Amino acid sequence: MKNDLLSYSNLGKRLEEPVIVGMMKKALENPGLVSLAAGFTDTSKLPMDLVQKAVQELCSRRDSLEYLQYGTNQGRPKLREETAKFLLSFYSKENATHIKPANFMISNGSQQSLYLAMQVLCNEGDIILVEGPSYFVLLELLRGMNVQALSIPMLENGDIDIQALDHMLAKMEKEKSLERIKGIYIISYFANPSSHSLSESTKVSLGNLIRKWSLNCALIEDAAYRELYFDAPHPSPSILSIQELDGIPRLYLGTYTKPFVSGFKIGYSCSTDATLLNKMLCVKGHQDFGSANFSQALLEIILQKNWYTGWLNELHPHYKEKVECFKAIAQEEKLADLGWRWTCPKGGLMLWLKGPAGFDSSIDSPFYKACLENGVFYVPGDLCFAERNTKNCIRLSLGSLPIESLKKGLKRLISTLQQVS
Amino acid sequence: MKNDLLSYSNLGKRLEEPVIVGMMKKALENPGLVSLAAGFTDTSKLPMDLVQKAVQELCSRRDSLEYLQYGTNQGRPKLREETAKFLLSFYSKENATHIKPANFMISNGSQQSLYLAMQVLCNEGDIILVEGPSYFVLLELLRGMNVQALSIPMLENGDIDIQALDHMLAKMEKEKSLERIKGIYIISYFANPSSHSLSESTKVSLGNLIRKWSLNCALIEDAAYRELYFDAPHPSPSILSIQELDGIPRLYLGTYTKPFVSGFKIGYSCSTDATLLNKMLCVKGHQDFGSANFSQALLEIILQKNWYTGWLNELHPHYKEKVECFKAIAQEEKLADLGWRWTCPKGGLMLWLKGPAGFDSSIDSPFYKACLENGVFYVPGDLCFAERNTKNCIRLSLGSLPIESLKKGLKRLISTLQQVS
Repeated sequence: MKNDLLSYSNLGKRLEEPVIVGMMKKALENPGLVSLAAGFTDTSKLPMDLVQKAVQELCSRRDSLEYLQYGTNQGRPKLREETAKFLLSFYSKENATHIKPANFMISNGSQQSLYLAMQVLCNEGDIILVEGPSYFVLLELLRGMNVQALSIPMLENGDIDIQALDHMLAKMEKEKSLERIKGIYIISYFANPSSHSLSESTKVSLGNLIRKWSLNCALIEDAAYRELYFDAPHPSPSILSIQELDGIPRLYLGTYTKPFVSGFKIGYSCSTDATLLNKMLCVKGHQDFGSANFSQALLEIILQKNWYTGWLNELHPHYKEKVECFKAIAQEEKLADLGWRWTCPKGGLMLWLKGPAGFDSSIDSPFYKACLENGVFYVPGDLCFAERNTKNCIRLSLGSLPIESLKKGLKRLISTLQQVS
Repeated sequence: MKNDLLSYSNLGKRLEEPVIVGMMKKALENPGLVSLAAGFTDTSKLPMDLVQKAVQELCSRRDSLEYLQYGTNQGRPKLREETAKFLLSFYSKENATHIKPANFMISNGSQQSLYLAMQVLCNEGDIILVEGPSYFVLLELLRGMNVQALSIPMLENGDIDIQALDHMLAKMEKEKSLERIKGIYIISYFANPSSHSLSESTKVSLGNLIRKWSLNCALIEDAAYRELYFDAPHPSPSILSIQELDGIPRLYLGTYTKPFVSGFKIGYSCSTDATLLNKMLCVKGHQDFGSANFSQALLEIILQKNWYTGWLNELHPHYKEKVECFKAIAQEEKLADLGWRWTCPKGGLMLWLKGPAGFDSSIDSPFYKACLENGVFYVPGDLCFAERNTKNCIRLSLGSLPIESLKKGLKRLISTLQQVS
C-alpha cells in the first residue's frame, strides 16, 4: 500500500531547506551562540514608540475600522502614494516619470516581489544573471525553480566588469542561450553580501548591453539596504530614474523591513512595465490576494506624519557604530596579518571578508565547525555565488548584534582564524 | 528592436487577472454599488478594542522588542502552540495526535498555505479533485498553474456523492489518470460558496476511496469558516482527528482572518505529514521566509488571554442576523416564487442561490449587467465550478454588509430577477 506516500511536483522534489531558515532558527533558538549570520536588523533599535503612536492614531479614527479589514491586492493606494513621495523627496536624483503610485505593489517584504517576478519571468532552464557574490536566498529559490543563476564577471573592486560581461554575452549568443536570459539582478546599494554599491554609469552600461544584445529581460534592482547609509545616501539614482534606461523593463525592489519594522514584513516593488506588474499581481492574487492591511495602515500614518524620515536620521549613526567596532577589533586582533581583506561598508548591515586563496569557509569545512565550537557562526561565502566555487569568503552580518555581543562574536571568529592559520 | 518586450514564463503567459481582485477593487472603490460579492467580514464588527489592548500589552514588555523583529519561517512557536490548544479545547471531538505545534505553519492567510501545497504537489497536467461548487480562487490559481481542477460528483443536497465518485475513479483508473490526482480539496465547514458542511462519515468515505484506489494524494480540508457558526459548532471532527483516516496525508487549513482580524492576514495550516509540511516551508522560505511577526505576536497575546474565544461568542449572533435578514427579504419579495432555491446557512458568510434551469447568471450575461445597472453585484456561480458549466447559481456574500445595505442589495438583486423573469 502506497497510501502514506505523496507524489510531489518537480519543484517539490527539488526542494532543500533554505539555508536562511536554518540559520534564523539557530540564531533565535541558541542565545549562547553569537550569530554573525542572520541578516536581522538590530532588535534594540526598532521603533516601538512610533508603532505605538501609530496604533493610537489609527484606533482614534472612529469613522471606520477599515484598517482591520482586508485591503486590495496591490496594496493601500495611500501607502503606495506615500512610498513614491518618499523616494522622490528623500533622494535628490529621482524623478516621477516611473515613480508613481500605480506602478507600485506592496508585498510581503520585497522578497515576495522578487519571487513573483521570478515566477512570471522564468521557465525551468531559463537564466538570471547575478553578481558574484549575490543574495543567497535568490540563488536558492532559483535552484528550487530549476532556473540557472549565472554569475556576471566582476572586477576586483566589486564592480561589474562590463567588458567581460560583453564577451560573455557574445559567447552566449554563439551558443544560442541569450534568449534564456530573463533578468539581470543587481543589488546596487550597500549590497547583501558585499556592501558594494553600483554607480550610475554601471547601470547605464548594463542597459546598453541589454540593447546591444537585444535581451528580452528585465533589469531588477534590489535596493533593500538603500536607506541604511551611514553618512549620506549613495549618489546613484535608481534604475527607475535613469533616462538612458528608457525602453528597458525595470523592476525596483524596496522595503520597510530593513530600515523600519522588520516584524511588519512590508516591502514593495515599482515596475516601469505595466504588463510585468499586472502579471506579478495576478500571482499575488493567488498567493494571498493582498498583504496585511493593518501593517500597511500603520506605515501609511508613519510616512504621512514624516515620522519615517525622522527615524532614518536617528538610525544612520547607529549602524555605522557597528562597522567602527569591527574596524577596531580587526586592527586589535591583526586580522589583515592573517591574509584577510575587506572594504569598509558605507551603509547596510553586512561586511564581506575575503580570505587567502585556498581557504575553505564552506558549511562543511573544518573551519565552520571550529567556529560553531567556539560559539560563533557566519554565512559561508560560497553560498552567495551562483556557482558555489568561491570558498574563501565570509559574510558577516554586523547590524543585528549589540556592540558587546558583536565584539565577542568577532573575537571568537578571529581567534578561530588564528587557530587554523 | 524587441527590448521593450519581456519574454514571460508559461505561468506568466497563462495568467489572467483573478476575479477576486477585480471584485475586491470594485467593492472598495465604488461605495455606491452594493457588493454581495466580496467575501469580506463585517468591518463594523472587527475587534478594534482587543487589538489596541494587545498592542498596549506588547509594548509594555520592556525586556525585548522581539515582536518588531523578523520571526521564524514556520511562525511563532507560542502562536502555533496556542492555535493547537484552541482547536483542541474549542471543539469537543479533536485530539492531540496530530494537532500539535510542530505540525503547524503560520502563513499569510490560509490562502498561502493552500498555494504552497499546490506548488509542492502539482506539476502541470496534474489533477485536484474539488467539490462542485468550490472555492473560486483555488480554481483560478490552478488554471494559472495549468493544473486540472476536476469536480467531484455531488448530491442534490450538497453532499459528496461517494458512490458516483467511486465510479468516476474506476473510469479514471481505466484511463490511467489516477496517478495524476495530487489532492482532494474539501471545504467542510459552512463552505464558501455553498455554506454546506460535510459529515464525519463523508470524510471517512473519502479516506476509504483514497485507500481503495491507492491514490497518492493529500486530503486537504479548508476550514476557513469553521469558527463562524451561528448557534453551535458543526459536530464533525476535522480530518486531523478522524482515526479512520490514519495513514492518509492530510492538510488542515485554518485562519484568523475570517473570525478575527482580516487585516492581520494571518492564517495557518496543520499537516499530518512532516515531509509535506517541510516542503511547503521550503517554498515559504523562498517566498517571504516568515509571515509578519508583529501580527503574530498580537494574536498570540489575544489567544493567551482567552480574549479570542470570548470574541467568537460575541460574533456568532451577529452573522446569524444577516441570514435572518435574507430570509425576511426573500419571503417578502417572494424569491421562491421566481423559481429560486437555497438552504439556509448555519454558519459562514455565504448564501448559495440556485436558479431555474437555463438561467444565466454568468459575468457576461444580460442579468449580471442589469444587476450592475441596478447598483448591485454578486459572484456568478459558474466561477465556482471547475468546469464552469453551471450557470444558474449565484453566490451571495451576506457577511460583510451592514443590515441596511444588505437589505438594499438584496432588494435590488431580487427586483432585477423579477424584471428578467
